[in-house]
Amino acid sequence: MTQDITFYFDFASPYAYFAAQRIDALAAAHGRTVRWTPVLLAALRQATGSPLAPEVPLKWAYVQRDLERTARLHDIAYRQPPGFPRFLLEPGRAMLWIRQEHGDAIATAFARNCFSAYFGDGVDIGDVAVLQGIAAALGVDRAALAAGMVAPAIKQLLKQESEHALASGVFGVPFVLADGAAFWGFDRLPHLQAQLASH
Amino acid sequence: MTQDITFYFDFASPYAYFAAQRIDALAAAHGRTVRWTPVLLAALRQATGSPLAPEVPLKWAYVQRDLERTARLHDIAYRQPPGFPRFLLEPGRAMLWIRQEHGDAIATAFARNCFSAYFGDGVDIGDVAVLQGIAAALGVDRAALAAGMVAPAIKQLLKQESEHALASGVFGVPFVLADGAAFWGFDRLPHLQAQLASH
Repeated sequence: MTQDITFYFDFASPYAYFAAQRIDALAAAHGRTVRWTPVLLAALRQATGSPLAPEVPLKWAYVQRDLERTARLHDIAYRQPPGFPRFLLEPGRAMLWIRQEHGDAIATAFARNCFSAYFGDGVDIGDVAVLQGIAAALGVDRAALAAGMVAPAIKQLLKQESEHALASGVFGVPFVLADGAAFWGFDRLPHLQAQLASH
Repeated sequence: MTQDITFYFDFASPYAYFAAQRIDALAAAHGRTVRWTPVLLAALRQATGSPLAPEVPLKWAYVQRDLERTARLHDIAYRQPPGFPRFLLEPGRAMLWIRQEHGDAIATAFARNCFSAYFGDGVDIGDVAVLQGIAAALGVDRAALAAGMVAPAIKQLLKQESEHALASGVFGVPFVLADGAAFWGFDRLPHLQAQLASH
């Protein structure tokens, strides 16, 4: 009952953004907390041999429409960010540095605000100045963040989180591990809910 | 309002079976009818370069658990059939011959009963004698079915249905086309429902 739920995401994934909008409230309704863990989707997909959605033209047009419909059906603010889709290393690195220096709560708030800025408001979270602004609102020093997030140990840590996730059976995002069970995709949050309710 | 909805499926797909359990009632609630169209999933996946789920070990264990949870959450009888997963050409061919000789309604009832026999009761629908039994219950002649379903034109027709589906943007199963919109996966039936309700 008291174990944490782990939520794996990549800041570049809109489905992860949708899950990010819901996961904490869902967990809290069952007296649980969530550990937010950034990973690199590209590293996970490589391991399964699955192409990323934007690499399959037939599928990509469909996914774009599915994103709009999913957002509408679940009443989540969503707009396709400029330059989407793209790889995003910066916010994950920034989050991990913040987690190391300021703890999980501030790091999670930072991640949540990054997601909303990117997919809700179309703000470029690949821009370090933007990340500094989001972090500063949470009391994080701008200069320390800019220096810390590019330290080799932090860059390495993001890769390690992806490797650890993969070793735990995580092969996509969003992904949730709870009480030994795995849930892949925003559309599986009802399954997670059923599992939490059954305990 | 009166246009048909097209439902694409492969008899080997449990997610297609789940959709098959719901699609007619969903459509009927909005005054719509469904045209059931068998396709070969392997042909569709080849076109997108995506491996089939059983080909990715990490993913396959997950999918098996997801199937059980999905069935439970939606209160659908489900058991993993013997020999699963496997390719199934026979029921699709039988259905297309029945459609040609007896019309859509009998063919759809046949398909529905094949799905229930396979995923509900674990009956081998790759066995022609089984297919003859399912068809006979609908008034179809056993000998005529056995001869008709292996005719070159019927074998070819199943391939053609897959090619036509692919040309219409279908890249997986279950897949629904309705009023120019595409819905992929059992988990997207709520999206279909929202679309039908909005018209």
